[in-house]
Amino acid sequence: MCRWLAYYGSPVVMHWLLYGQQNSLVVQSLHSRMGAEETNGDGFGVGWYGEGDTPAVFHSIEPAWNDRNLQELAWHIRSPIVFAHIRASTGSPVQQTNCHPFRHGRWLWMHNGLIKDFLTVKRDLVLAVDPELYPEIEGTTDTELLFHLALTFGLEDDPPGAVARALGLVEKVGHDHDVEFPFQGTIATTDGERVWGFRYSSEGKSRTLFFSTSVVTLRALYPDVELLQDVSEEARLVVSEPLGDELPGAWNEVPESSYGVVQPGQDELHPFAPIAP
Amino acid sequence: MCRWLAYYGSPVVMHWLLYGQQNSLVVQSLHSRMGAEETNGDGFGVGWYGEGDTPAVFHSIEPAWNDRNLQELAWHIRSPIVFAHIRASTGSPVQQTNCHPFRHGRWLWMHNGLIKDFLTVKRDLVLAVDPELYPEIEGTTDTELLFHLALTFGLEDDPPGAVARALGLVEKVGHDHDVEFPFQGTIATTDGERVWGFRYSSEGKSRTLFFSTSVVTLRALYPDVELLQDVSEEARLVVSEPLGDELPGAWNEVPESSYGVVQPGQDELHPFAPIAP
Amino acid sequence: MCRWLAYYGSPVVMHWLLYGQQNSLVVQSLHSRMGAEETNGDGFGVGWYGEGDTPAVFHSIEPAWNDRNLQELAWHIRSPIVFAHIRASTGSPVQQTNCHPFRHGRWLWMHNGLIKDFLTVKRDLVLAVDPELYPEIEGTTDTELLFHLALTFGLEDDPPGAVARALGLVEKVGHDHDVEFPFQGTIATTDGERVWGFRYSSEGKSRTLFFSTSVVTLRALYPDVELLQDVSEEARLVVSEPLGDELPGAWNEVPESSYGVVQPGQDELHPFAPIAP
Amino acid sequence: MCRWLAYYGSPVVMHWLLYGQQNSLVVQSLHSRMGAEETNGDGFGVGWYGEGDTPAVFHSIEPAWNDRNLQELAWHIRSPIVFAHIRASTGSPVQQTNCHPFRHGRWLWMHNGLIKDFLTVKRDLVLAVDPELYPEIEGTTDTELLFHLALTFGLEDDPPGAVARALGLVEKVGHDHDVEFPFQGTIATTDGERVWGFRYSSEGKSRTLFFSTSVVTLRALYPDVELLQDVSEEARLVVSEPLGDELPGAWNEVPESSYGVVQPGQDELHPFAPIAP
Repeated sequence: MCRWLAYYGSPVVMHWLLYGQQNSLVVQSLHSRMGAEETNGDGFGVGWYGEGDTPAVFHSIEPAWNDRNLQELAWHIRSPIVFAHIRASTGSPVQQTNCHPFRHGRWLWMHNGLIKDFLTVKRDLVLAVDPELYPEIEGTTDTELLFHLALTFGLEDDPPGAVARALGLVEKVGHDHDVEFPFQGTIATTDGERVWGFRYSSEGKSRTLFFSTSVVTLRALYPDVELLQDVSEEARLVVSEPLGDELPGAWNEVPESSYGVVQPGQDELHPFAPIAP
Repeated sequence: MCRWLAYYGSPVVMHWLLYGQQNSLVVQSLHSRMGAEETNGDGFGVGWYGEGDTPAVFHSIEPAWNDRNLQELAWHIRSPIVFAHIRASTGSPVQQTNCHPFRHGRWLWMHNGLIKDFLTVKRDLVLAVDPELYPEIEGTTDTELLFHLALTFGLEDDPPGAVARALGLVEKVGHDHDVEFPFQGTIATTDGERVWGFRYSSEGKSRTLFFSTSVVTLRALYPDVELLQDVSEEARLVVSEPLGDELPGAWNEVPESSYGVVQPGQDELHPFAPIAP
Repeated sequence: MCRWLAYYGSPVVMHWLLYGQQNSLVVQSLHSRMGAEETNGDGFGVGWYGEGDTPAVFHSIEPAWNDRNLQELAWHIRSPIVFAHIRASTGSPVQQTNCHPFRHGRWLWMHNGLIKDFLTVKRDLVLAVDPELYPEIEGTTDTELLFHLALTFGLEDDPPGAVARALGLVEKVGHDHDVEFPFQGTIATTDGERVWGFRYSSEGKSRTLFFSTSVVTLRALYPDVELLQDVSEEARLVVSEPLGDELPGAWNEVPESSYGVVQPGQDELHPFAPIAP
Repeated sequence: MCRWLAYYGSPVVMHWLLYGQQNSLVVQSLHSRMGAEETNGDGFGVGWYGEGDTPAVFHSIEPAWNDRNLQELAWHIRSPIVFAHIRASTGSPVQQTNCHPFRHGRWLWMHNGLIKDFLTVKRDLVLAVDPELYPEIEGTTDTELLFHLALTFGLEDDPPGAVARALGLVEKVGHDHDVEFPFQGTIATTDGERVWGFRYSSEGKSRTLFFSTSVVTLRALYPDVELLQDVSEEARLVVSEPLGDELPGAWNEVPESSYGVVQPGQDELHPFAPIAP
């Protein structure tokens, strides 16, 4: 029900990420290999850091595969952090305010999956959002609401803790309404300095999530692949599904119920569990 | 901050209402004469009754003046009740879910004006919506929320009473947040049998609202105007501003703080005041 | 590279045609079974006859599967002739003026397939369009140009002859530019009285085209299927691919290089060949 | 029938040009002061030079005033040359392929005004376009066709000569069809190194065009205006109408029938006349 990609590293032209691979995100918009839905044509969004204090976001309700403005931006924007998302709506309207990534200050947030029986639990979850943050919600997705729950629970200070408390509340409210498996999905968030990626589902059968092998290792494996020379040693991709299969060893699955941090220096991978309210 | 038109009578082709007059609604989308904003280009919507149990609604985020689909529908749809609305956003996003008229079952609802300081009072008002109705809210306008408050307060049984209670709550919540004049505007609603039009503002200086003179009277005044022969005796228009000035005596201002009912038999005009909670 | 449906018969609510079948056209927009492209998400269009002298056309650049306005129109419009088309662009822009069906006076026209190497042959074909008709061309598709060639060659008087001469020219110009197989596709056209469907490709391997078995025969085969009682005996569907497989015997392939006429009284099926200029 | 702005100078964030002035281009989209049409809400476009060999173009069919993607791009893109255009359609469809600026290789082109009786003369003008260039035309505007005529006549080698020959042909073809005043308007074009601006009409009453006074002079006049310190001495704006009136002496009208060149070193202003074929 969506596919996404997060890039962290030396600045790259977005085209390389979005179009330049065998199974790049724009290819996935027409035919994803591992998605719950094959077609992700209900709009898309990209976020990046460059001019200005906050990241830029671009949202469109068109399918990504034939969108000319996305082609233009992809060729002409270079950034050290790129979030990109293609959407397969699970019912909420196709409109820009429902496109990921969502932004708050310097933070971006995107998600693949769903809060189960969302219309049933929505009101209870909305009531838990900090009333100061509530008016910021402009769309009708579960993802945007989850973002504001995470912000309410301290995302800006402790991302893993805030996400754990937000999902803990989602599970509590879901169970209160007899929803067996209230959450499913993968989440990416960033403050422009680090990128966090989460994989979790109440059911223990989460949507796929992968991260790229370290550039140093890949260069040793594939000394002739030029693009591996072009990016920095710390460059890393976190993706819903691999962008291709030409380089065996390039992609690693994020384990069930875990999260990773991509950051200057050593990246991290930890177990993840919701924290009940 | 919007203009609207409600037609009740013998079935007419929509084009006559939307394009065929000197100051028709589509003309007003570019240059309204009496609106708070001259340009009403932030989307539009039409609702009508025909095939099916519920009314049809068509919503577009394009300006009405150059929209080809609106031209097509206008020429090819005939209906005994037509609601049409052109939008000038006061800040909420331009998206189909923010376009009027809104629908619930057989009911349509549209509005010109605003709930003052909407983001400040929104959460309190949302909490007052019947939790059963709450998940139906798909957009982010004050109008759609007001509609669901009116539905919560019994719109389907007693429209004037429900609107009075909804606006009473809006005024109460506004005053609680130090908003001096919490509501401003005109409202139209219909169940497909009757049309109600309201004109009210906390300030006592409401947006304009007009209704057409009875067809019987107009025929006597203008025996040579052919279109007056084509519509039924009970045909009536309720509009934000007159559709032209070629027929002196054709338009009558709805008084401040009042509402009218257009219906089979004698139409009605009554004083209106909010009912505090 | 597109899928289409043409209905002729007693007036039906469009929803039944577009959504109500196992493999209805809106299902095909996400996953067509027999199309050159599985996804047909680059806009859509519908045309119908009702109010007014000319048919109505509605065009959208959104994918059909999540378009709310299409849902609304489908539920609320009833017509004796419906043309519907979902588009998979072969390169030309996704814009309303490139959406089928195209209209000229009382005529509608839609197409699945392509003029091969269109940009190479386009100028020569444009020069062959009647200069009076030329300014009517508003988009950039091969289909709209082909329609205007057919109009130039007398579509309104002799549809099969005009289409044969138009495709004859397309083949001549293609061969002049070393295009081996200049035309591929299926075409539907109607004047509101009869529907013509063509299946032809220079290569002799044309896109699929099917027509429904006569209602009289189907009623005998399936006496318990209620909807067969609801439509007239002369009702007929012509479609890019069957709308389902629940009723064996319901669908018949249009043979290669042939055309059919759906009309009052006996329908017809004839061989088809282009006429060289 | 459109407004535009061309900036040349030290790299600036687009927001400053599009939103930051009293009468900035986005303000003009709702209420232009000097335009033939007050409202320019039929789409917009921006072009800029940055990453990549060719300039970027972004086109939208939404009105500029409420477009969130334009806000995002404006805050996050910095460029030494910016072309921006807001459209008031004179009849041709509102679609991205009709939005200015148009691009060919490293060239951008935009226009305010019209080729008179365009549909009458269009075919003859299309025939004059280099057949190699013809397939590049994707929209239906007079402006895009004029651009391709100028390219045909050598725009890339001699911009003033090519524009003179293109307008000479437009006048010849117009007069052949009994059009009294075949051309009206202002044109901007750039190759990323220099900017050319033209003001001409067959009638001798051209749409307005202004250029900003030299930064050196403005700094002497207004030593306290900070933004004049931020841009380079060679910075120059060419605009359909002044972006404000706070700085008397800041804007100069381009004379009738003349063109200017903004470039490194001394800018130029010359008389202009079409060259008949």
